[in-house]
Amino acid sequence: MAGGTPIEITDPADPRIAEFTDIRERDLTGRHGQFIAEGTVVLSMLAKAQAAGGDVVAEKLLILKNRLAGLSELRERFPADIPVYIAEAPVLDAIAGFHLHRGVLALGRRLPPPDIAERIASLPNDALVLVGCGISNHDNIGSLFRNAAGFTADAVLLDETCCDPLYRKALRVSVGSVLTMPYGRQGSAEELLGALASAGFEIWALSPAGKVEIGAIAPGRRVALVMGTEGEGLPEAILNRFRSARIAQAPGLDSLNVGTASGIALYAIARAMGRLG
Amino acid sequence: MAGGTPIEITDPADPRIAEFTDIRERDLTGRHGQFIAEGTVVLSMLAKAQAAGGDVVAEKLLILKNRLAGLSELRERFPADIPVYIAEAPVLDAIAGFHLHRGVLALGRRLPPPDIAERIASLPNDALVLVGCGISNHDNIGSLFRNAAGFTADAVLLDETCCDPLYRKALRVSVGSVLTMPYGRQGSAEELLGALASAGFEIWALSPAGKVEIGAIAPGRRVALVMGTEGEGLPEAILNRFRSARIAQAPGLDSLNVGTASGIALYAIARAMGRLG
Repeated sequence: MAGGTPIEITDPADPRIAEFTDIRERDLTGRHGQFIAEGTVVLSMLAKAQAAGGDVVAEKLLILKNRLAGLSELRERFPADIPVYIAEAPVLDAIAGFHLHRGVLALGRRLPPPDIAERIASLPNDALVLVGCGISNHDNIGSLFRNAAGFTADAVLLDETCCDPLYRKALRVSVGSVLTMPYGRQGSAEELLGALASAGFEIWALSPAGKVEIGAIAPGRRVALVMGTEGEGLPEAILNRFRSARIAQAPGLDSLNVGTASGIALYAIARAMGRLG
Repeated sequence: MAGGTPIEITDPADPRIAEFTDIRERDLTGRHGQFIAEGTVVLSMLAKAQAAGGDVVAEKLLILKNRLAGLSELRERFPADIPVYIAEAPVLDAIAGFHLHRGVLALGRRLPPPDIAERIASLPNDALVLVGCGISNHDNIGSLFRNAAGFTADAVLLDETCCDPLYRKALRVSVGSVLTMPYGRQGSAEELLGALASAGFEIWALSPAGKVEIGAIAPGRRVALVMGTEGEGLPEAILNRFRSARIAQAPGLDSLNVGTASGIALYAIARAMGRLG
């Protein structure tokens, strides 16, 4: 079980738990691969990803004292040498900087990811990839990963203008899928899509002005589905260079939420590719 | 144009704008049909719904002083007798109780809605209705309305255990669709679905254990799609009594977000009903 005897923290400024301080604010800054995982579901995914030899490792746990007994099963899934810190609710809230009703946190670290060209080269012959361009909203990034995992995507590839999917909120909204789904975030959208096209991927850019109805696509064996931001959508250059698909909807309304749109499109394409059984 | 000369507020405790104070907290309490609309998109929908003789009226506007000039077009869409209050940023933030970066608020009121039986009786012969059961998360309620509007639903009907869609955050996530979409919130799920069945609706309950794949349904002319909560899903009694549909996905994962699931199901059904052109 992780950590043997838990260590109680009584001073919010204790250096042993310094990485957990003010996580709401510090969340928005770079962390050299470190990230905060929150809640039992995300921590389970972290333990699972680490046990599977994935790209992530847990470095320490911080748990609300009165939840400790109920979490022994979760703790058993982490390696034995990870320290486990516990704190009473007021101390925990003072550390985190807000009321932490979930009461369970982990500090994780992502190992240096492979270069995106390597990531693409390692994809199977039959592959479905979700690509995000310019998606800066943490909830939306989290939704992309949740839906990619739900609909059997092999990887999520993000251009450099997307936000980091390891932000606490993105991680939470993804229900931890960021930790188990192979992904990369590197380069411009054009570079990314060019590399995928060179690797034999059909590129389908989703847009309200797309040419083909998403439910009518007869996809090949390698498909990349491309999502842009809600406001501006994908750049013209991308829509002109690659195939484009739309999701029919009632006229005159704001377009769909990008997370929902990704779910609809992934379901349609994964089903047409015969990936959903 | 709404309000003639705007009235400047300099004291956050000014009784003329009392309804806007501490909206983050008070949001969670009943308001006798009153609600707070936030941001230009939701306010546009409010003006549109009121102009169309809908169920809602705007009672007053509160605008960040330096945004006033840029919002004259929006103001023109409201009736002339609505007072417009303005305030500098620190005053506005002190009124609302948090930093209000959108800088534009309206106090609206919903007129007493028709009884749900009356609502059902007024639906057209060809009708698609979205039903929510036990959905208490404000974001999810907002998503249901956004997707219902996006995919041509005629109404959203909620059981009494759902949260009020007029909560500020639900309204915002719905992109204002709560104000234009006919809806009701009344009675138990069983009563609601019984009334729809009596009115000739095919009831399709969405569940990970559903019997028919959502994309394979050949719907009739009147369809009610039923969504439950993410955690527990729909009660057995409902799944046993009515038809059930599933959305195929990768095994072993947490189910889809309820908003995303509603989008996928509504798109599939609205398309199969020939409603999406």
